[in-house]
Amino acid sequence: MSFGDIDRLAVSTIRLLSVDQVSKANSGHPGAPLGMAPAAHVVWTQLNANPKNPDWIARDRFVLSNGHACALLYSLLHISGYDFSMDDLKNFRQLGSKCPGHPEFELPGVEVTTGPLGQGICNAVGMAIAQKNFAATYNKPGFTLSDSYVYTFLGDGCLQEGVSSEASSLAGHLQLGNLIAIYDDNKITIDGATSVSFDEDVAKRYEAYGWEVLHVQNGNDDLEAIAAAIAKAKLSKDKPTLIKMTTTIGYGSLHAGSHSVHGSPLKEDDLKQMRKAFGFDPEKSFVVPQEVYDLYQAKLAKPGAKANQDWDACFAKYQQKYPELGADLARRLSGELPANWCSKLPTYTPADSAVATRKLSEIVFQNIYDELPEMIGGSADLTPSNLTRWKEAVDFQPPSSGFGDYSGRYIRYGIREHGMAAIMNGISAFGANYKAYGGTFLNFVSYAAGAVRLSALSGHPVIYVATHDSIGVGEDGPTHQPIETLAHFRAMPNLHVWRPADGNETSAAYKVALESKHTPSVIALSRQNLPQLEGSSVEKAVRGGYVLQEVNNADITLVGTGSEVSLAVDAAKVLADKGIKARIVSMPDFLAFDQQPQDYKLSVLADGAPIMSVEVLTTKSWGKYAHESFGIDSFGASGKAPEVYKHFGFTPEGVASKAEKVVSFYKGKDVCSPLNKAI
Amino acid sequence: MSFGDIDRLAVSTIRLLSVDQVSKANSGHPGAPLGMAPAAHVVWTQLNANPKNPDWIARDRFVLSNGHACALLYSLLHISGYDFSMDDLKNFRQLGSKCPGHPEFELPGVEVTTGPLGQGICNAVGMAIAQKNFAATYNKPGFTLSDSYVYTFLGDGCLQEGVSSEASSLAGHLQLGNLIAIYDDNKITIDGATSVSFDEDVAKRYEAYGWEVLHVQNGNDDLEAIAAAIAKAKLSKDKPTLIKMTTTIGYGSLHAGSHSVHGSPLKEDDLKQMRKAFGFDPEKSFVVPQEVYDLYQAKLAKPGAKANQDWDACFAKYQQKYPELGADLARRLSGELPANWCSKLPTYTPADSAVATRKLSEIVFQNIYDELPEMIGGSADLTPSNLTRWKEAVDFQPPSSGFGDYSGRYIRYGIREHGMAAIMNGISAFGANYKAYGGTFLNFVSYAAGAVRLSALSGHPVIYVATHDSIGVGEDGPTHQPIETLAHFRAMPNLHVWRPADGNETSAAYKVALESKHTPSVIALSRQNLPQLEGSSVEKAVRGGYVLQEVNNADITLVGTGSEVSLAVDAAKVLADKGIKARIVSMPDFLAFDQQPQDYKLSVLADGAPIMSVEVLTTKSWGKYAHESFGIDSFGASGKAPEVYKHFGFTPEGVASKAEKVVSFYKGKDVCSPLNKAI
Repeated sequence: MSFGDIDRLAVSTIRLLSVDQVSKANSGHPGAPLGMAPAAHVVWTQLNANPKNPDWIARDRFVLSNGHACALLYSLLHISGYDFSMDDLKNFRQLGSKCPGHPEFELPGVEVTTGPLGQGICNAVGMAIAQKNFAATYNKPGFTLSDSYVYTFLGDGCLQEGVSSEASSLAGHLQLGNLIAIYDDNKITIDGATSVSFDEDVAKRYEAYGWEVLHVQNGNDDLEAIAAAIAKAKLSKDKPTLIKMTTTIGYGSLHAGSHSVHGSPLKEDDLKQMRKAFGFDPEKSFVVPQEVYDLYQAKLAKPGAKANQDWDACFAKYQQKYPELGADLARRLSGELPANWCSKLPTYTPADSAVATRKLSEIVFQNIYDELPEMIGGSADLTPSNLTRWKEAVDFQPPSSGFGDYSGRYIRYGIREHGMAAIMNGISAFGANYKAYGGTFLNFVSYAAGAVRLSALSGHPVIYVATHDSIGVGEDGPTHQPIETLAHFRAMPNLHVWRPADGNETSAAYKVALESKHTPSVIALSRQNLPQLEGSSVEKAVRGGYVLQEVNNADITLVGTGSEVSLAVDAAKVLADKGIKARIVSMPDFLAFDQQPQDYKLSVLADGAPIMSVEVLTTKSWGKYAHESFGIDSFGASGKAPEVYKHFGFTPEGVASKAEKVVSFYKGKDVCSPLNKAI
Repeated sequence: MSFGDIDRLAVSTIRLLSVDQVSKANSGHPGAPLGMAPAAHVVWTQLNANPKNPDWIARDRFVLSNGHACALLYSLLHISGYDFSMDDLKNFRQLGSKCPGHPEFELPGVEVTTGPLGQGICNAVGMAIAQKNFAATYNKPGFTLSDSYVYTFLGDGCLQEGVSSEASSLAGHLQLGNLIAIYDDNKITIDGATSVSFDEDVAKRYEAYGWEVLHVQNGNDDLEAIAAAIAKAKLSKDKPTLIKMTTTIGYGSLHAGSHSVHGSPLKEDDLKQMRKAFGFDPEKSFVVPQEVYDLYQAKLAKPGAKANQDWDACFAKYQQKYPELGADLARRLSGELPANWCSKLPTYTPADSAVATRKLSEIVFQNIYDELPEMIGGSADLTPSNLTRWKEAVDFQPPSSGFGDYSGRYIRYGIREHGMAAIMNGISAFGANYKAYGGTFLNFVSYAAGAVRLSALSGHPVIYVATHDSIGVGEDGPTHQPIETLAHFRAMPNLHVWRPADGNETSAAYKVALESKHTPSVIALSRQNLPQLEGSSVEKAVRGGYVLQEVNNADITLVGTGSEVSLAVDAAKVLADKGIKARIVSMPDFLAFDQQPQDYKLSVLADGAPIMSVEVLTTKSWGKYAHESFGIDSFGASGKAPEVYKHFGFTPEGVASKAEKVVSFYKGKDVCSPLNKAI
């Protein structure tokens, strides 16, 4: 690749357009865009993508892991012809703008939401996994439906975050040669020189992970060296590549090389001298010379549109030659699940035996894996505990490993919960309807909180298979027993948090989770066996909450989730013997329940009798739904599970005794459902 | 060091005693204790510690990062003469036992709670930091008050977790030569061979971090090689050492080398053959030959007691020679803060200007740093944003770096929130009253959730300085704006979660946080300026909730936290103009409030008028305290902070309008405080 004046003009344009956004908003990060503009130009002028169809499945992906540098991304999107106008750029970081303070997944051409450091590189690993799986599944001789690359830019911050270590180690193991990461080695972070806390040998560390590591000495100017490194990276077929690119943060600014240019807008005089130095009119902002637009048309937009067109033609032929696979892929690209897929979901009657919900979850996987080729997932090294693998599963592994191949859909994530979650987000963002799931103990989903939040914020419909959901783990003790965990996830917007009580509810959880297009799910599952309940069904449970047992003139409503629903049923029997009438509500998912019409909700959590929640977790999630809460607001205890339950009073008699107190306290009072609210 | 038959007998004893615990409990992990017993023996027979005084400040520390191997630790503690009887061991993993399923901090000789993987090695880094700081602060010529080592055992799981990468990278930078980590390279995890997901070159990675890396080829038998590696590690004065020790998981079992021996008790026949092979009576369990007890008396308990005695004598002389420093240290060892330290906390009146609470927090640091030499902390690379550094601070850095020295108390954590938190736990666990704090944006404390949980579970009184606490961050947008974060932490047992509204409340937060002996604190601080409130005081605020403005015959109580308290005050003025009387409650910390007597609490959240919470965060934490909640149950938005507040309706008029609806809804109803509960 050779570069001329037009390329240098383009680089200057990108630099200025980025700092103009930041200065106009008087907020944002000019430093990294100035340093990384040359690499951005080299990557984007060889990006195989179609700005008019940003979701084209065969496109190359570009992930800005250092999301604070988003002005750079918006500049590129605008110049390349994505649906970003100059006015959008001028509205950078303003309320309602298409150019928010960090890139957001919904925007055209923005592959993932980034900003929380370390996430983007992991998302990129997820995309590279998805691409490998997609290609291994659908490519056929003469029909290369996918051979794309995933590029990611990242800075020192992303490299210091542990989550990137986890995903990078796995990427090396998986030999993801389709992944090219460009590290902005600018030696500056917010606290000053990186050397105050970060003097490790990054190159050597990535070599240790099994990556190809290249070095561009002068990332500020040397377009040829950058292009040569990328060309070499593309030849590295069985190793991901890290290109360590040494740059000057804030290149061109009076404050270049200093941490003050990282996150503070450039002042007017600095802008002017920079424009002048780059050969631009010092008085004019937001300038893109026509020849720069033309260059990006010629290098990106036109070839991208053509490639998309060719791909469409190829896929049309493919569908003729491989009708089954073609139809399957066409369906996936439409974002729809197979018709009637959920007839495969198992259902149960009370005559069926008691089974742990983690095992019921395994039965779901076993029943549906063949129906849903988009399901891809695994466990953070807890496969025999999480029960996340169907019997016939092939591992997603480099063929040379002897453990599987890239068409495999079972991922051995290793003991890397946060990395797993961030990778799942990337797999989901790849497209093709991928339904990514990952297993760990519920308590350790908290390790992944940073990425779970991004699942919810971005609306990636991934599934956290979270087994060992309570003190029911028993002997492993308080370090492994969730207390606050569900309250945390229930407080997160746009997240289903299921805690099914039996087989029908487990099927319901997967039905909603898999049909969800923009909402992730945590499915909390028991280690211990739970009975199949009288009164449960998939149809009822998908509403998130329903009456399991109705009685007329109830004295109390007991509402529970998971293992405590059957406990509430048993407590109701104890209460009945004392002449107290308890109705039972099962509420496996608050979000699905919240989405029901108010009259339905009031028929479940009804007026007239006090409502007491029963859950062996913190009471703190229940204020909205119950008058009284029986839970555990301290940490758990190590011991045999039934003894630990007893220790905390969670026996039929213990629950009944609390219920009696509640009944007596509310006797004679006019009891309104807590769902009746003014605001 | 040379070893004989007695040592081999001791190793066999430790192995058998460990698997006996697991088998008797029929629960636990025999694999790692069998593999690591030789290394444990070599370390513990040179450990400088006093079983009769486990908290002796000059002791060596031993951290079992792979906490599931705790049967090994309990065996060592018993044999060495700590307060662990044979009956305690026989009660392994039973409810109420002194030998719970994972080691817990409160137990004698257990340095930290471990089990959640990756944490222990980071705690060890924290202890090594504390030791370096302690030595640099108190050692004087002829008075070596501390020269101890921190040993840690860790497995593949700990090494895969990103949190350990973060802390290990920092440990290399900090040149912590007092840290010796022994890696149980047994090639097995729960999913099978480590090679299914983890084939990176660990040794090379740790070299990249700046560690000394040694290799023991035969960790199963070769005591001499283990001892030689440790001796070499001790000579490595300016690098932490990782000893990669290749072992066979479940050594001696019929299932040795397989993942089935990781977490499943050995069967009776396996136990018997093992006892026989080790020269023990195959029918007898829980056997410790007297000569093994004697060996540990001779090698550990007696020299440890003597060293402790010598240290006491040395410290007595030290106090004479260095009266001021000696008194200071004596005070710290007693666990008390200086008398009247909190007279240094700033107080404010409404005449004082509006200041961001993050800035008020900085003023607290500035005022008290000199008073409290036990304060040690820093920021995860957000110093200029978190404002966690007092002006005169010296950085905690290796002297050769030129950035500071080991007597420094300001830590540049790098962009490593989870590692920072886990390191803080280790610093706190070191003793000497260390008060560790760490700053990041509130939203990114979530990255550290795994370690925050352990702060709370173990009762390490560390402080999370969590700035940029809401949509008030403005332009950085939803990726940086907490919504669910405080609900998460408020649901965690034993955690103060402060969100101060002004200067007095900020001082109150630090007063409680620093005086706390067993409870950590999150202090959520605003980016934006907040006025000094009429009616606030340190004395009121330490109660967690108080009446800021009382009115007779109130129509409504508005309860808020942080930036929304002054907003509620302004809303009350709008309401007053409409003839609606609002009283104002400020509730900066739910936990402190919960600990008040019920009559006090009812005087604050009183009967008679509806209570509406006002907080720009999820409403999900408020069910226990308010009838109605005005909050944000969706993600935030990027824009100028005041515009974002307005967008979500958080203006005096917006709050007043919600309040009006609430007043009208409850009019004529008998309104009881939500604190009146049956259970």
